[in-house]
Amino acid sequence: MYSFDDTLRKIETGITKFRFSEHPRSLYDPIEYILGLGGKRIRPALTLLACNLFSDNVDQAVKPALGLEVFHNFTLLHDDLMDQADKRRNKPTVHKVWDANTAILSGDAMMIYAYQLVCETPEKCLKQVMVLFSKTALEICEGQQFDMEFESRTNVSEEEYIEMIRLKTAVLLACCLKTGAIIGGASEKDADSLYEFGIHIGLAFQLQDDLLDVYGNPETFGKNIGGDILSNKKTFLLANALKMANKDQLAALTDWMEKPEFIASEKISAVTTIFNELGIKQLTEKRIQSYYSTSMQALNSLSIDINKASILKEVTDKLMFRQV
Amino acid sequence: MYSFDDTLRKIETGITKFRFSEHPRSLYDPIEYILGLGGKRIRPALTLLACNLFSDNVDQAVKPALGLEVFHNFTLLHDDLMDQADKRRNKPTVHKVWDANTAILSGDAMMIYAYQLVCETPEKCLKQVMVLFSKTALEICEGQQFDMEFESRTNVSEEEYIEMIRLKTAVLLACCLKTGAIIGGASEKDADSLYEFGIHIGLAFQLQDDLLDVYGNPETFGKNIGGDILSNKKTFLLANALKMANKDQLAALTDWMEKPEFIASEKISAVTTIFNELGIKQLTEKRIQSYYSTSMQALNSLSIDINKASILKEVTDKLMFRQV
Repeated sequence: MYSFDDTLRKIETGITKFRFSEHPRSLYDPIEYILGLGGKRIRPALTLLACNLFSDNVDQAVKPALGLEVFHNFTLLHDDLMDQADKRRNKPTVHKVWDANTAILSGDAMMIYAYQLVCETPEKCLKQVMVLFSKTALEICEGQQFDMEFESRTNVSEEEYIEMIRLKTAVLLACCLKTGAIIGGASEKDADSLYEFGIHIGLAFQLQDDLLDVYGNPETFGKNIGGDILSNKKTFLLANALKMANKDQLAALTDWMEKPEFIASEKISAVTTIFNELGIKQLTEKRIQSYYSTSMQALNSLSIDINKASILKEVTDKLMFRQV
Repeated sequence: MYSFDDTLRKIETGITKFRFSEHPRSLYDPIEYILGLGGKRIRPALTLLACNLFSDNVDQAVKPALGLEVFHNFTLLHDDLMDQADKRRNKPTVHKVWDANTAILSGDAMMIYAYQLVCETPEKCLKQVMVLFSKTALEICEGQQFDMEFESRTNVSEEEYIEMIRLKTAVLLACCLKTGAIIGGASEKDADSLYEFGIHIGLAFQLQDDLLDVYGNPETFGKNIGGDILSNKKTFLLANALKMANKDQLAALTDWMEKPEFIASEKISAVTTIFNELGIKQLTEKRIQSYYSTSMQALNSLSIDINKASILKEVTDKLMFRQV
């Protein structure tokens, strides 16, 4: 059995071995740049760990795992451009270092490179892996589209938000796990269980992230506290607050959301106070716990030695505590 | 044997059968829009015709052929955004009807959809087709990158220009032909010969297009005559004119290229006069003839009944006379 760190090492080694064409450098430099910004490489590690549950030959899953990591970074590159984000992992984004056209075209090349790597899947399961990968890739585009549309809407329901984060975040984790399982030779039922595990742990992870954005420790949370409140992001927290608010609370929330100018700390404090009055923190924690439980049920339903699966639980707990 | 028109009908029928997810419509509407703008569907038709040279079962190649057409249209969508083009087939471009973000994300989704279709290749040759497709897709990105870089350069050599159009235009035609051949069960040698046929006919076609941009009949040429001259496009014609010009001609050409303001008809007339003095038209025609001959040699080298291949010659001649 490989440890989490073993798989991370295999992934990092794989990434350092990427060799792109010398010409045109301007197409490939941005790809090396964004891949060089780091990141916890959790997704490809999950692919290798899932493969290892069913096979000792983890190396056969390395290329597809790298493809999934490249695809993830491609989505960050294009999303950053669409969101006009200035920073990624505390470094300037690709369209800031170069320009919008470079971000578009290098992103396109990066997606193709991701497909090339995923296509290095053993031929016996190539079709199945490619179908899963493309389905997932399209869902991620749908998630990003919903996310952008939600910015200009005020009536986003909890259900719509959950569906958006399922598409934008959870399906890729699930795809990474299922891809590893398929390559490892898992039964269809086990592969599907790992997919379900990934979906629910992905949802839990995203809600945890939303919660920490409001209630996190400023010293350990990577971003500034209250960012989602300041940008009126339609998270699980806000969607529920808007639904549960009484007349006065609703008026206050709407007022803060519509104010074109405000003092940041005042808006964060006022909105957080309403969240507190409505018990939004507890509600969110309950839902996180629910998704976490469902994910564990899926893990426990695997037809393998339960001790083997404990490594995925360990990684999950790292996710839950936002160390990834 | 299927006729060219038979294959076009199969392609159009396939395109009308595309069904995209209902949500989010804003992601999929632009894809239907650009595919609905028409185009001659020459690329997927080539795939079916190439398949038909080796197999009566052309239907097995329809989905991959459609994938190649979708991929081609994806490149148009993103290229139009990068080039800030207002029109495509006389209709507003996607980023004009919607916006830049829509063009980016719907383009991404379109590339994934292209992969889904190409992945419907019979499993016996799936790996080979996917590898060829991804290699080609990456080369097309390289071609677009070179094309954009050439805009801000004045010293583009003929060789660099030919390499750019090989990547941007010719490899996709070659890939379409080879994909059909592979699916039809061609020998490796025949598949490679069709690839070479595609490369050289693609180069001939692009040079023909460049030539017509200067010397075409304004009534039958789809675009305004002289567009390349006005935008200082580093074509085969200009690259050779700059190389062959004497001191006075070079000074005049450079002067026209650097003028920030000018009367269009005067610039077109002056540059065309220099082209005429240097025999650029004849030089270009000679090169076109050379690529055309090489493509025909590749076609004639196929290990099949030469009469079967005549249909590809017929389509080629349509390309050469810009009816496609």
